[in-house]
This record gives sequence, C-alpha cells and structure tokens, in this order.
Amino acid sequence: MIEIHPLSGIPEINKGDDLAAAITAGLAATGLVPREGDVLVVTHKVVSKAEGATAVLVGEENAAYRALVEEEAVEILRRRGDLVIAKTRHGFICANAGVDRSNTAPGTAVLLPRDPDRSAHSLRLSLLQATGVDMPVIITDTFGRAWRKGLCDVAIGLSGLEAIADLRGTFDDFGRELKVTEVAVADEIAAAADLAMGKATAMPAALVRGLGLPIGNGRATDLVREAPGDLFR
Amino acid sequence: MIEIHPLSGIPEINKGDDLAAAITAGLAATGLVPREGDVLVVTHKVVSKAEGATAVLVGEENAAYRALVEEEAVEILRRRGDLVIAKTRHGFICANAGVDRSNTAPGTAVLLPRDPDRSAHSLRLSLLQATGVDMPVIITDTFGRAWRKGLCDVAIGLSGLEAIADLRGTFDDFGRELKVTEVAVADEIAAAADLAMGKATAMPAALVRGLGLPIGNGRATDLVREAPGDLFR
Repeated sequence: MIEIHPLSGIPEINKGDDLAAAITAGLAATGLVPREGDVLVVTHKVVSKAEGATAVLVGEENAAYRALVEEEAVEILRRRGDLVIAKTRHGFICANAGVDRSNTAPGTAVLLPRDPDRSAHSLRLSLLQATGVDMPVIITDTFGRAWRKGLCDVAIGLSGLEAIADLRGTFDDFGRELKVTEVAVADEIAAAADLAMGKATAMPAALVRGLGLPIGNGRATDLVREAPGDLFR
Repeated sequence: MIEIHPLSGIPEINKGDDLAAAITAGLAATGLVPREGDVLVVTHKVVSKAEGATAVLVGEENAAYRALVEEEAVEILRRRGDLVIAKTRHGFICANAGVDRSNTAPGTAVLLPRDPDRSAHSLRLSLLQATGVDMPVIITDTFGRAWRKGLCDVAIGLSGLEAIADLRGTFDDFGRELKVTEVAVADEIAAAADLAMGKATAMPAALVRGLGLPIGNGRATDLVREAPGDLFR
C-alpha cells in the first residue's frame, strides 16, 4: 500500500525562511515520523519563496507580468492571446515560463527556482540532518499538456530517486521483454501528491510512503525531452 | 491521507471473463472492504481482454502489428522509424494508436476498449451490484508525452467522477481568484495508481481511498483537447 499524507501546519514561507525546519515541523504537526523509503514532495512555490525567486510586478500588473514571462523564457514555442508556451532555462516546456501569480501576494509573481534539482538536494540534506532519515525530495509544479485538457503536477526538481524507472530488460507475465517501458515515476509521484495537497489550500508538502523505490541519483532535468528527440516542437 | 492499494489475486483475464467478479475477488484477497469514496482503477489491458478487444498477429508479426496500428489510427500525427504517434477513434493521441504487445500472449496484441467510458460505467454498475458500494471507476493506459521523457498512466475510461476538477471561481490563500486551474484529477489518480500496480506484475487494479472527491458524471473523453484548441498538432 502507498500512503500520501499532506502536511499540515506549514506557515506562509518568505524569503530566507528555513524550509526544512518548516517541513520538519509540518511532519510533527501531522503526526508523522519519517521512515526509510519515504519521499517528501513539496510544491515549488514555497521553495521559490524561501529562495527569494519572486518578483514585484511594477507598474501596470498585466504588462509587468507579460514582460517577466518573456524574461524568464529562453524560447517561445507558441502564443495565443495572453497564453505563452515557453521553454524555461531548465528546459521545461510550460505555460508562461513557470511565472505564476496564484498563491502569492497581490502585485507579486513567483518564478521557478533557479536550479530546482539543487534546491531538492539541499532540502534533502537538511531534512536528513533534522530527522536522521534520508528522504528523497521532489519539487513540483503544475503543467498543462499537449493533446489533453487539464493540468497535472510534475517533477521540476529531484534528489534521491531516479526520475525514470527503466524497466527495459525486465519481462512481462508472458516472458516478453519490456523494451520501451520507461516510467516517469517522479512525475507520477508529483501527480499523486497533488491529489492530497490541493491547489487553494495551505498544504504545500506531502509525505509519500510505501513506494518501494531505491535511493537513486536522478535529476528532474532527466525528464526533459530535448528538441532533437521531440517530435512536437 | 490517501491510500493506494494494489489488488492481488486477480487471475489472467480472457475474453468473456467476468471482470467485476475478478475484481471483487481481488478486493477480498487483498483484505479490502469497499467504502463510499473509494475509487477503483483498472488497467485497460484486462478490460480489453475481457471484452475481446485483442487481435492475432497473422503472418510476420512486426508487419501484422504495423498494419494493425494503421487500422486502429484515425489520424497519424508523426512517424519516426517504427514509432507512430496517432489519434485513436476516441480522440486520444498516443503511441501506436494504443495497440500493445506487452503482457499479452505471443503473437497477439491488445487494442484499446471500443468505448472505455462505457466499459468503466458497466464495471462500476457491476461492482455496485457485487459490493453494494458505488465506486467510481477509472480505466488507464500508459502514454508518452510531448516535451517530457518517460511514460505516465492516464485515464482513458471513467465513470462516477469528474475528469477535471474545475477550481475556477475558488480563491487562493491570498484571496486571488483561481482562474485557470483545472486539475486533471482522473489522470492524476491514474498516475498514482500506477505507482502501486507496476508494469510487469500481475496487478492490474488498485483501490484508491481517501480522495474526498464527490460522485460526478465525467468521461475520460472530457480530457481530449480537440485540434482547434490544441496548439500542438
């Protein structure tokens, strides 16, 4: 059985706040004692806020927001009205280059963390120090998809797991070798955690227990399909 | 807390088998008594097999497989080598029009169910009769994505839930109205269940408990972004 526990008791996070301490307090407030095998999922918004990856929208807010999106984008794939589908400097393709105005103070926007894999790694080390348990960390954002409506949370930062479980070389129940089954486990964990965290509530983190995944050395950028291999640019 | 329980004890399913009975037996074998609010997730493969949505690959297997993919596709979006990205008759965009040769007897392929939303609805009604509990049902398949590597399970059939939780009109913690947050909950549940079911094991179903979602009337086809609204065709 897999369990997904949203963490309660995490206060609003501001620049310079100790996110690991806030999460450790959240674990305690939720009555959870971390165990080996647990994975900690946190929305990027609190990571960005703690790191100061936010911006004040100076002047007319919508114009300032649009300018900021252009600044954060390294490539614009599509535009329609106010919607921009862009590549971020990390290589992620998402709406508005990841610049977000929800769950942040009016007149401000939250950017993606500068290096979310590094942020995940730092948080993992701090949580190890605080709890004594080496918990893999996944930092999430909410992305749209081509061809399918609705948004799903995905992994944009990762430490302690492989991003993709490569099942090539294993066999199905009929003895047929699984040749192309590379499961994006980090994204599936992000999606699972989102079900528990919700969007409008102050629950920016969740503990996922019982995944049975070994510690690994993946990065969320392993999930980026670069243009030469991507049929849809 | 959300719990995801993979169901053990479900035997290999063949054409004409009573899938609801097999799942009910699986629930019992796993020690689960269904409750209101539980959601039953099942991979399409067993649904297709029960419905006889399979094909024998006559003659040279790879050639027969490729011909079958062309037959199942209503539109080819991209080709590269043996890989075909196609639209199915349901409107889903996926590799090889959903025709799959893993976890099926050598020389055969599994197709998508003809009408997976209807399949989900039938299964939901049969499970209600068998267990007395109205459990929403999600039928899943494993899809690739544009821009991101790795595969994630998604919903291709649905009964008893909304496919998309529309949060427009609700407010974030700063009182800002959430304008475009439509969460593809059916896909997130599919992804979450996949983490418990695995790919090469004989666990084609899972019970997801604690989602807190109301009964709804969505269809998995609600998740299809039609070409006029899709920037990536």
